[in-house]
Amino acid sequence: MNQLQLFENIRQKRSFLCVGLDPEKEKIPAFLLKGKDPILEFNKKIIDATHKYAIAYKPNVAFYESSGPTGWITLEATVKYIKKKHPEIFVIADAKRGDIGNTSKMYARTFLEKMPFDAVTVAPYMGEDSVTPFLSYDGKWVVLLALTSNKGADDFQYHNEDGIKLFERVLTVSQKWGSTDNLMYVVGATRAVMLRDIRRIVPDHFLLVPGVGAQGGSLEEVAKFGLNSKCGLIVNSSRGIIFADNSERFDKAAGEKAGEMQVEMEYYLKERNLI
Amino acid sequence: MNQLQLFENIRQKRSFLCVGLDPEKEKIPAFLLKGKDPILEFNKKIIDATHKYAIAYKPNVAFYESSGPTGWITLEATVKYIKKKHPEIFVIADAKRGDIGNTSKMYARTFLEKMPFDAVTVAPYMGEDSVTPFLSYDGKWVVLLALTSNKGADDFQYHNEDGIKLFERVLTVSQKWGSTDNLMYVVGATRAVMLRDIRRIVPDHFLLVPGVGAQGGSLEEVAKFGLNSKCGLIVNSSRGIIFADNSERFDKAAGEKAGEMQVEMEYYLKERNLI
Repeated sequence: MNQLQLFENIRQKRSFLCVGLDPEKEKIPAFLLKGKDPILEFNKKIIDATHKYAIAYKPNVAFYESSGPTGWITLEATVKYIKKKHPEIFVIADAKRGDIGNTSKMYARTFLEKMPFDAVTVAPYMGEDSVTPFLSYDGKWVVLLALTSNKGADDFQYHNEDGIKLFERVLTVSQKWGSTDNLMYVVGATRAVMLRDIRRIVPDHFLLVPGVGAQGGSLEEVAKFGLNSKCGLIVNSSRGIIFADNSERFDKAAGEKAGEMQVEMEYYLKERNLI
Repeated sequence: MNQLQLFENIRQKRSFLCVGLDPEKEKIPAFLLKGKDPILEFNKKIIDATHKYAIAYKPNVAFYESSGPTGWITLEATVKYIKKKHPEIFVIADAKRGDIGNTSKMYARTFLEKMPFDAVTVAPYMGEDSVTPFLSYDGKWVVLLALTSNKGADDFQYHNEDGIKLFERVLTVSQKWGSTDNLMYVVGATRAVMLRDIRRIVPDHFLLVPGVGAQGGSLEEVAKFGLNSKCGLIVNSSRGIIFADNSERFDKAAGEKAGEMQVEMEYYLKERNLI
């Protein structure tokens, strides 16, 4: 998928919503626990209820990995389910990987070759040769961490050399490694006002914005400072959607929450004449 | 395991060698491929042949993850095999994980609770709350990336604020999160001369040093600049040991290579009156 196809999907669905599929056994409705693979059943029902409003899904790999080998089976079945039923939906493995070249190549193979993910989130600390192996797949993307949504982002990401903060250097330097068709950046919604500065460095790239909802970020601010001429935003919500309700109608509740976000997103897209 | 126990193991084996268990199906001897789990067989034979000379093993998770769910079964069986036969050996999950707090907690659970690893490598980019969940297990360790052995280390790790490079800030700031009993750092052997400066910041912490052997780092230099009063070094070699030979005697060859490194390490330990 390239940048224009992504924008086209956003225009068709009038939404730039990504649903974070971060299920925990302790939090999913009890009636599902009797089944063979409760997490997969949960995911399928969430997907069925939200796909009209979502242009992307983002399973965080940690939540599957923690169940051991069966968790990986669930992860693979989840991405295959999405891709089979909704091939146009962009699916991101939120894995935050990154290692020396020959090792990153193995990680890239896992998510982009063996599993049909469209993108992987990658940590930038180890630099170019830790990231480029993920960029060697046609139509697949790297989502590079720039400014994250958590408190710990303050510890190192603002480290300032001659007025240039580390996350700004990550944005500047990494642009040479890929293009607006295969590289996007994580910018936390909890830092929405920073989006104005960030758009000066990466005016054209897509940004994946977590932190709306449970983490406290404002969708209005994100849209205000982050939208560009091709939308350029994928806004993620996880807990706010998938755990909206804990009863037998959890999927309907998730669909309603996703629908509310879609309506708000449609408003911002119209306001900017993007649809 | 605490720092003193680790030092005691080093004194007993007269070695600070870590063997990197990074097997690839394409590179292991052909005769093993007939078995049920060739990688596990390979690992077991490498462990049997090298455990006399090694105080630690470090499977890089990417090499297992790339085989899907069965790779995770192999990884778990490998760490359990080591811990059952040689409970004193320190086993590091080279996973380079790191995410927002509730997600890092899931990763920590995977490696330190569900599997009996002693330590996990963690990437520092996301700061304190991405690292501390790994530090909440008694006797378990975080191995935090500081200065890595690859070329891409130059891209961001030297980012310099008022004379303090990013990797130095990582060393300084993170010391408050843990202690010399649960926190060590990755410093690549290819940057051995930097160890002198690094020892000024972390005189007492253990350092995990990859990059000796295939990546070109010198053990002599690492020992010269890195040894402290409790050894303070775990030096890793992967490909140089495990792929020393491709025939039916691959394990013997691996044992010989590990033995050679042990002899050299014993020399440096004696030179410093550590044994």
